[in-house]
Amino acid sequence: MRLAIDVMGGDHAPGVVLEGVIAALPELGPGDQLTLVGPRSIIESALRERAVDDPRLRIEHAPDVIEMHESPVEAVRCKPDSSIVRMCMLASPKTPAEQRLDGVLSAGNTGACVAAATMHMKRLPGVHRPGIAVTLPTFHGPIVVCDAGANPEPRPLHLAQYGVMAETYAKHVLGIANPRVAQLNIGAEEAKGTRMTKLVRDLLAIVEGTNYIGYIEGRDLFDGAADVIVTDGFVGNTILKLAEGLSMSLLKGIGAAVLEADPELAMRMQPIAQRLKKKNDYQEYGGAPLLGVNGVCIICHGSAKARMIQTAITQTREFVETGVNAQIGQRLTALAPLIEPRAAANQTAQVRTPA
Amino acid sequence: MRLAIDVMGGDHAPGVVLEGVIAALPELGPGDQLTLVGPRSIIESALRERAVDDPRLRIEHAPDVIEMHESPVEAVRCKPDSSIVRMCMLASPKTPAEQRLDGVLSAGNTGACVAAATMHMKRLPGVHRPGIAVTLPTFHGPIVVCDAGANPEPRPLHLAQYGVMAETYAKHVLGIANPRVAQLNIGAEEAKGTRMTKLVRDLLAIVEGTNYIGYIEGRDLFDGAADVIVTDGFVGNTILKLAEGLSMSLLKGIGAAVLEADPELAMRMQPIAQRLKKKNDYQEYGGAPLLGVNGVCIICHGSAKARMIQTAITQTREFVETGVNAQIGQRLTALAPLIEPRAAANQTAQVRTPA
Repeated sequence: MRLAIDVMGGDHAPGVVLEGVIAALPELGPGDQLTLVGPRSIIESALRERAVDDPRLRIEHAPDVIEMHESPVEAVRCKPDSSIVRMCMLASPKTPAEQRLDGVLSAGNTGACVAAATMHMKRLPGVHRPGIAVTLPTFHGPIVVCDAGANPEPRPLHLAQYGVMAETYAKHVLGIANPRVAQLNIGAEEAKGTRMTKLVRDLLAIVEGTNYIGYIEGRDLFDGAADVIVTDGFVGNTILKLAEGLSMSLLKGIGAAVLEADPELAMRMQPIAQRLKKKNDYQEYGGAPLLGVNGVCIICHGSAKARMIQTAITQTREFVETGVNAQIGQRLTALAPLIEPRAAANQTAQVRTPA
Repeated sequence: MRLAIDVMGGDHAPGVVLEGVIAALPELGPGDQLTLVGPRSIIESALRERAVDDPRLRIEHAPDVIEMHESPVEAVRCKPDSSIVRMCMLASPKTPAEQRLDGVLSAGNTGACVAAATMHMKRLPGVHRPGIAVTLPTFHGPIVVCDAGANPEPRPLHLAQYGVMAETYAKHVLGIANPRVAQLNIGAEEAKGTRMTKLVRDLLAIVEGTNYIGYIEGRDLFDGAADVIVTDGFVGNTILKLAEGLSMSLLKGIGAAVLEADPELAMRMQPIAQRLKKKNDYQEYGGAPLLGVNGVCIICHGSAKARMIQTAITQTREFVETGVNAQIGQRLTALAPLIEPRAAANQTAQVRTPA
């Protein structure tokens, strides 16, 4: 298997990225190949420092870097020699099959990853817009939220496809049997929501072979009421960041309160708090696949540490091995004649904007 | 002061509503009047049971009830004798001044409250669409989120007005000096977000006398980065429900983990956990004002208990006393010539929908 990683991606690159790579080496097979994409000199000296010399590691020289704050589309257009763009080009159908990458991974500018992957790796048959599927830890098990930010202004058809793609991913990669697919809304009742939510519901309702359970409210997300949550990239991204911020703030607040009330109690709480943190730490959950691209592209949290990079490399291999992309392509192609005419009829609707 | 409360509103009505009313009686002035709106027989027997006979309590007979699951607009149109509609009609400018209510309060169907208040109480001068301003507890103090669900498909002008209205409310009712107004977005960078977020930013940027600090991510909401958060009713409502569900699930999960690890420790944690729960309990925060209506309308969480109703009655009195509505009307009227032409120029933009 041929994988590549964006050495310059993330807040702690290149250091933690290379540490993650080194930690993942024992998990790679003898026939695997891991290409490190970034400025050759930086990578070579970093590997020398760490006395790493593994024949399975290749270096793809990419002198340029797309910064976290850059506007994705412009950056991808203007920086063909950036690590993100070079990496995605190596996974492009235009690259000869014997050199083409099976999977790519970055903790860099998310928007740039989405733009570069879509532009160079292209889309799976039947897919209109790729979407990011993030796995969130809950006390009832993991839930998958799609889209988590690739597509902040989707059409109803995009969201219906996210439901099918994320369900296929949850089933074949996460091993969730018969995942319950729910649509995020501001109420569980039919009458609640926007024109957008209603149009998406109408599409998901006619999708065969999907366990669509209807609307779910934000309140029930962490109660194990559904396995796959469909929402637009604006709401999905907001949910993730809110959950991350609120969990941290609550744990901090509880810790401070216990310490203030009873320092000895706080000391005894420590190990339990650590276990809980680990159980709810997104670093343990690795990266998120960009579903719908014709290849495997895993995107990591910008604050990824070595542990997360290591986990994400394993995930990338698993994603490739499951061959879930073939399933997604087949399902969406088969569904097209069913849902596309219905979606087209609503094409003119100004979803989420009052007339 | 003349206030009214929807006795049939909420999951635990009429019992807890009346208990909340009774608990609030000592706080009412001798000249105050509190009208109980609902079926006369139910109210009379409930008061008799509780041996309550207070001259400041009036009964407004409303035989009909709008259920939580009903579609708001139809329900308001078809049930003129429902407690919500009757209550709002008593606060209408059409009601003779000597009988007109100064403030109304309900824990019933939120959408129906919004529709009935907008229809019968009308809007303040300059206001295009009323919005719900919810106060959320954080360890850094309360934050105000507007809109929390009145307007799931707003125009940019609506959101800009929510920023001004919620800021005025935070300053004059919550007593936050020079509140920092932020706009919820999926990134802090200029390039991030939807056409909607950009159009709203352009409007808020030219509003004079508002401490607009730009974009804020969901991650920073609970970090004290801003006092007032502007967002559409779909996202705002989702945020509230998510925060509520996640907090509960985290506290439950921590409690279970401590109990499993060390029952004696769990016992000692109890009082601290109780204090924290109280501090973060939305029941303590009462209701949320529907900003922009020509009067005072406070909407409570459907799960409101007596304590919340009592707090909300006090809030309704405070809101009336501050005369904040006059300030909102003046500010928006003064701002109209500045922001309305700019907003009109974008009227045709299909915000949050790709072309």
